[in-house]
Amino acid sequence: MEALIIAAGRGSRLNHRFSPKPLVPIFGLCLIERIILRAKLAGITKFKIVVGYKSDRIMKKIGSGDRYGVHVDYIFNPEWEKGNGVSVYKSKAFLKENFILLMSDHLFDDSILRKLQQVEPESDCCILCVDRRLNSDHFNIDDVTKVWVENNKVKEISKGLDRFNAIDTGIFLCSPVIFNALEESISKGKYSLSAANQILSNRGKLKTYDIGDNFWIDVDDRETLQKARKILLKQLKKPTDGPISKILNRKISVMISSKLSRLNINPNHLTLISFFLAVLSGLFFFLGGYPKIVIGGVLAQLSSILDGCDGEIARLKFKQSKFGGYLDRVLDRYADSLIILGMTFACFRTIEASWVLLVGFFALTGSFMISYTAIQYDELLISKAFINKSSVRIGRDSRLFIVFIGAVLNQLFITLIVLSIVSNVECIRRLFVLRHEYKLS
Amino acid sequence: MEALIIAAGRGSRLNHRFSPKPLVPIFGLCLIERIILRAKLAGITKFKIVVGYKSDRIMKKIGSGDRYGVHVDYIFNPEWEKGNGVSVYKSKAFLKENFILLMSDHLFDDSILRKLQQVEPESDCCILCVDRRLNSDHFNIDDVTKVWVENNKVKEISKGLDRFNAIDTGIFLCSPVIFNALEESISKGKYSLSAANQILSNRGKLKTYDIGDNFWIDVDDRETLQKARKILLKQLKKPTDGPISKILNRKISVMISSKLSRLNINPNHLTLISFFLAVLSGLFFFLGGYPKIVIGGVLAQLSSILDGCDGEIARLKFKQSKFGGYLDRVLDRYADSLIILGMTFACFRTIEASWVLLVGFFALTGSFMISYTAIQYDELLISKAFINKSSVRIGRDSRLFIVFIGAVLNQLFITLIVLSIVSNVECIRRLFVLRHEYKLS
Repeated sequence: MEALIIAAGRGSRLNHRFSPKPLVPIFGLCLIERIILRAKLAGITKFKIVVGYKSDRIMKKIGSGDRYGVHVDYIFNPEWEKGNGVSVYKSKAFLKENFILLMSDHLFDDSILRKLQQVEPESDCCILCVDRRLNSDHFNIDDVTKVWVENNKVKEISKGLDRFNAIDTGIFLCSPVIFNALEESISKGKYSLSAANQILSNRGKLKTYDIGDNFWIDVDDRETLQKARKILLKQLKKPTDGPISKILNRKISVMISSKLSRLNINPNHLTLISFFLAVLSGLFFFLGGYPKIVIGGVLAQLSSILDGCDGEIARLKFKQSKFGGYLDRVLDRYADSLIILGMTFACFRTIEASWVLLVGFFALTGSFMISYTAIQYDELLISKAFINKSSVRIGRDSRLFIVFIGAVLNQLFITLIVLSIVSNVECIRRLFVLRHEYKLS
Repeated sequence: MEALIIAAGRGSRLNHRFSPKPLVPIFGLCLIERIILRAKLAGITKFKIVVGYKSDRIMKKIGSGDRYGVHVDYIFNPEWEKGNGVSVYKSKAFLKENFILLMSDHLFDDSILRKLQQVEPESDCCILCVDRRLNSDHFNIDDVTKVWVENNKVKEISKGLDRFNAIDTGIFLCSPVIFNALEESISKGKYSLSAANQILSNRGKLKTYDIGDNFWIDVDDRETLQKARKILLKQLKKPTDGPISKILNRKISVMISSKLSRLNINPNHLTLISFFLAVLSGLFFFLGGYPKIVIGGVLAQLSSILDGCDGEIARLKFKQSKFGGYLDRVLDRYADSLIILGMTFACFRTIEASWVLLVGFFALTGSFMISYTAIQYDELLISKAFINKSSVRIGRDSRLFIVFIGAVLNQLFITLIVLSIVSNVECIRRLFVLRHEYKLS
């Protein structure tokens, strides 16, 4: 399905040095880039953008869409000052089938568009995505377009409604019938999209789609811009994050990522940097001796923190790749190996007994086994959603944190013992958990 | 969808001590058990079985179906000697909707039933699964029911056709219209199913479904029974089998599995036995010295061969389980670890240099990494089907065979070096292969 993006207005309330509003940047991508890339995640690759105010800037920024792997056409609306209804109407000649209508300043979850595209609208009907969470703090209730919904149909729609039970999210699935309604409202001197929507709703032709728990936000002013930033960062957390990741690593890595997002960094390079820190950590352990061991521990923990940034940057800037995920996992395993190798040699040199090697061997095997069994175990965790039931996931974050603490306390051998016990016991525990779950399923 | 299985006849040509024919065993399961369990793989859990000749034996064997996780009802046909058409007709009162019709002596791939169930038949139409491979050696052309197909419709059907372009596989998707045709043919004194099918085809109501490359066989005599056994064993090969597995291990393990299949063995117990052999192997290496090392090597190779049997028995006897696969993978990794640990200690004791430990460490890491990356790599292999393009898969079969050869030649250290180089280089190669493939996709 094609998408029409309205990017013709001025957005005067966001007195930002980046003007017009669609070009306001959030974490290295401007609003309209985020709209396009988000819609692309939902499978949309053809866009028409209605431009008006400072149209040249937007066209220069987005170009043909090649850079984003999509196709973009532009429609110029010289009367952009009249209202957004006029902008939509300008596309009449170019849209003969159902299309998705998006605002250039409304961020949203791609799952909204994914599901919306699966709705089969009756012909001559438009569908408006509405938010039923009236108490949400994602918007200022005075600024939003309010909607009165009855039986999944819009009865009334306007900013000034006294009685309302939903909010207009600015996301539509439109049939070309919208242009008739626009023609009528414009002929009456009403230039807003809401005016046309009111005409549609009077005829019973405007249905609603409830976006449920999904995220959307209208970036209207500095306050909502700040909220949008916060939400995007919050979305970087992963359901499989372990306890150390939740409490410590993720908070720091998200901070780093938010800074790094402004630069043009390839996530895979961050993966390599994190790996390099781990190699250094292993080397410092290998060399042994008190100060070097502490440096090794600090490097291990730094590597662990930075290990979150590659994925965060990838998700934040729509640069996720299958290979990136694969590279990250493979290098993480080599990194874990080298750190445990270094620790084992450091211990072996001081204690000089071959059972030290045995402990190192079991720590290495256990560490590998935790990662090896993680795919099945995480699948289960996610499908069961028993992550929220405060079940602890002993993963890489915990392992490297134990290494860090052990190194700072100069207790490498005890650390190795702890690692080998914790990881192998966890691996056996997973065996029983999975046996139980597979039996039930 | 429900399935109707015709198991009323005598099957006199297979003069087997297990009589009636549906009870003839193949690898620990009798024919009708295989039919039920195969259909269950295609999602069918409700069965009606028409019994006649020695009905008590069949009913005693299959019972309520609980043992197979399905529900079975029986329909008794006292006139079973007349023909299979009468047996189908006896179920008229109990089948008011479309159903799958199966013969109790025809083995088949479950994918046939899976796809057949997705075909939406026009009402009042039956669909006959046909085999277009007239030159197949899976059947004796003199014995099969021949079909003349035009535009996916049966034009003529009978054993005695002179002109034919397909073979009746005995698998049908029937609408209740079949009973009208049976009534008509029986009233004319024709008691075979083919006679009713000819009536349907005269009315243009018998369509065909081409089973393509899928397997089916009518177990009619000793010769076809032998063929069925061979084919079932051949199906135990896996597309991801490595070179040593293809050339050696799989041949031996299949032989062992075909013997073991007669016993009531839990595949997970075989997994444990294979693991135990690997632990013993590691222990013999650990103890060191020439004869013990050879024993260690032989045990490793034995464990590798037996490692195939758990999956083979599971597939052969419909005992596959998610947990079984998981347990196998986890124990394989611990087994690999212990073998490499034993080898490393044996070498360290003779050479007494810490770089021996380094080599052991890299062999261990490489071995793990090969298994860790196998999931993604195998997915690619299977999806690309470049297994057939003679690409070699360096897996556990190769690793343990290298260990075996190295041990017999008393060259453990060289073996460790080879293992660490081969496995880590393979892991890096996979990284590049996957990067290339992911970029293309």
